[in-house]
Amino acid sequence: MLHSNLLRLVARGGPKRWMSTTTKLTSVEVNDKTGIATLTLNRPPVNSQNVQLLVDLQSSIGEIESNKSRGLILTSACSNVFSAGLDILEMYNTDEERLRTIWTELQNAWIALYGSSLPTAAAINGHAPAGGCLLATACEYRVMLPKRLIGLNETQLGIIAPKWLMSGFLNVLPQRVAERALTQGRLFTTEEALAEGLVDEIANTKEEALEKCAAFIGSFTKVNPLARSLTKLQFRAENIKEFEKIRKKDVEDFVALASRPEVQKGMGIYLENLKKKSKK
Amino acid sequence: MLHSNLLRLVARGGPKRWMSTTTKLTSVEVNDKTGIATLTLNRPPVNSQNVQLLVDLQSSIGEIESNKSRGLILTSACSNVFSAGLDILEMYNTDEERLRTIWTELQNAWIALYGSSLPTAAAINGHAPAGGCLLATACEYRVMLPKRLIGLNETQLGIIAPKWLMSGFLNVLPQRVAERALTQGRLFTTEEALAEGLVDEIANTKEEALEKCAAFIGSFTKVNPLARSLTKLQFRAENIKEFEKIRKKDVEDFVALASRPEVQKGMGIYLENLKKKSKK
Amino acid sequence: MLHSNLLRLVARGGPKRWMSTTTKLTSVEVNDKTGIATLTLNRPPVNSQNVQLLVDLQSSIGEIESNKSRGLILTSACSNVFSAGLDILEMYNTDEERLRTIWTELQNAWIALYGSSLPTAAAINGHAPAGGCLLATACEYRVMLPKRLIGLNETQLGIIAPKWLMSGFLNVLPQRVAERALTQGRLFTTEEALAEGLVDEIANTKEEALEKCAAFIGSFTKVNPLARSLTKLQFRAENIKEFEKIRKKDVEDFVALASRPEVQKGMGIYLENLKKKSKK
Repeated sequence: MLHSNLLRLVARGGPKRWMSTTTKLTSVEVNDKTGIATLTLNRPPVNSQNVQLLVDLQSSIGEIESNKSRGLILTSACSNVFSAGLDILEMYNTDEERLRTIWTELQNAWIALYGSSLPTAAAINGHAPAGGCLLATACEYRVMLPKRLIGLNETQLGIIAPKWLMSGFLNVLPQRVAERALTQGRLFTTEEALAEGLVDEIANTKEEALEKCAAFIGSFTKVNPLARSLTKLQFRAENIKEFEKIRKKDVEDFVALASRPEVQKGMGIYLENLKKKSKK
Repeated sequence: MLHSNLLRLVARGGPKRWMSTTTKLTSVEVNDKTGIATLTLNRPPVNSQNVQLLVDLQSSIGEIESNKSRGLILTSACSNVFSAGLDILEMYNTDEERLRTIWTELQNAWIALYGSSLPTAAAINGHAPAGGCLLATACEYRVMLPKRLIGLNETQLGIIAPKWLMSGFLNVLPQRVAERALTQGRLFTTEEALAEGLVDEIANTKEEALEKCAAFIGSFTKVNPLARSLTKLQFRAENIKEFEKIRKKDVEDFVALASRPEVQKGMGIYLENLKKKSKK
Repeated sequence: MLHSNLLRLVARGGPKRWMSTTTKLTSVEVNDKTGIATLTLNRPPVNSQNVQLLVDLQSSIGEIESNKSRGLILTSACSNVFSAGLDILEMYNTDEERLRTIWTELQNAWIALYGSSLPTAAAINGHAPAGGCLLATACEYRVMLPKRLIGLNETQLGIIAPKWLMSGFLNVLPQRVAERALTQGRLFTTEEALAEGLVDEIANTKEEALEKCAAFIGSFTKVNPLARSLTKLQFRAENIKEFEKIRKKDVEDFVALASRPEVQKGMGIYLENLKKKSKK
């Protein structure tokens, strides 16, 4: 694996070309000076992760990896939400084939971000429950705006977060804290998240969050990028390997679970609550 | 495993029946209002874990799991001791068959508690060395009275705590702290235990400890119980699997070790010290 | 494994013989009163780990293990450096066979220290980057002088620290801290290291550091040494097993990597910087 990785990384040559591109639901902007790419999720009002957003996210990550950017910052175009997680509307009252596609693309988006050889950071400029937290914890660093919420609250929906989905979460939290939070479906306030290590810094504005993320990526300036990438991947290799082993079965488990009447009912209740909250 | 678990959990229907029952050395009381069961260890003076207590404990856990309780609180009827751990008297100057039975029932009691699908909490109203700590750390939450002691002090007895016995301990402590504590056979004061995360809260009375445990179990009120159980088991599955692999060999290892003259001698010294302490 | 370990440990009898011995680049002194051996690295000016030092270190560890010492304290004879890590001079502009030998002896020295059944502590009386940090984190306890630096800064050299080399580091740091530090090639100040748990205590002089290490080793006085050893090894067994599986391939990976022109160039730059620093 070492060798193929080396080759892949080494092969990534060619002239630098900074550009700003937009897919349907994400956009990428590369800072000409720092070489850092900002990937913005842009599906108002709450960046619910439907199949399109997940596919666009992968395409943007791929683009950033191939354009020789020095790092990737993930953020949101929505004013108060980083990402509300999977689009329950797409999962509610649908067929198995659609459920299969949603979960497969969630897996694909996660592995693209979690396994990226680039330095990654999340500027969490709004709430990040469930799949929002998944993306944030797939990054290497997290800066969050005050008084937002973050966490894997799957149990509240009657969904079981599989091991791979917890990987990033478990990487940053002590096991004791993680087991309790996951069984409770706990959402941490920014301040609680900082205290436990779930986020690394607090910023008062989105701009400040982006700056702090850029500073983190800047901490690798004196580091050999090849050695950095391989060191990062070595850290994450076990989780990635475990994931690859079960990814197909995991899709079927999800489809079976999400199709259950009581889980569908849970989604219905969640959607109702979400509507109420968003009206506040 | 997912499916058989699902079925087992789903099958657990039937009308609610709260009751208070007593085996020889444990008792179960279910709060009619909260639906939370309190399991009390009742073998004065120090809840030494002999075969009878371990068998009764399993039977009480099984009863609580089948009576649709909302959670389980483990506590002690003894005034100053949660549990002193394995009954060294039963292990001292005995035959191999007895040692085999003791260790097998300790394993059975542990896996029943550690692998329980219910929310579990320990109201540690007294000292909890060795097997006492084992039971406390098999639960999901710990509330302890001040100025008591808790820890896995096996090395002081010349016994090696096997991996499964450390599982709960390792789940709640950082590896650095755990390795040091286990090699030293360290007993933590309540205050030290809180600082390291070995216990979660301090309570001044047993009643207050029970209330705090009930509050913890109450934190799952809005959570889907099926998703909660599967999430918990997923967290503990690896340890359980490892345990199942070695459980038979582990019994034989224990019997061989506990039969050694120097270990028997260590037990003798420990029993002497215990006598002195209990006279204070 | 339990049994062969038991036998090996039990076999270690014979009359006590305290002595002070010196190999070419290390020395061993046993305190007659405490029975604790101090192993001093003595290759001025910075204890660069060349093949000779690594071989001598193994020989000294072996001697301490066989002379029934109660514990081992690792320290440095150099005034401001614990160990600067692998001797880059030996790795720079050399042949593959030499690279192979260097890495093999580094592996051998590490496993001798990491897997030692004795209580081990490091009196870190100076900077401990790279291989210096490796030796310090192979011990069970670390006391460090103020305002020194410690860490695995391999990525700054373009070298990838393999899993086994990180074992001790990962044993003492939370995963979040470890992944970031390793990708950044971060060197912690003594004070930062204490805050994160990378070192356990600060001492103002080398003598004080040695005393604190001796106090740590003294914490095992009441513990059964056989049980202590097996408990320690049980904790480290998984890392040791993983290491044994890959140790040969790991040597070849290192040789391939260290031979790469850009890595050789990185070493050249590092050597230049080191020269400048040492002139300050």
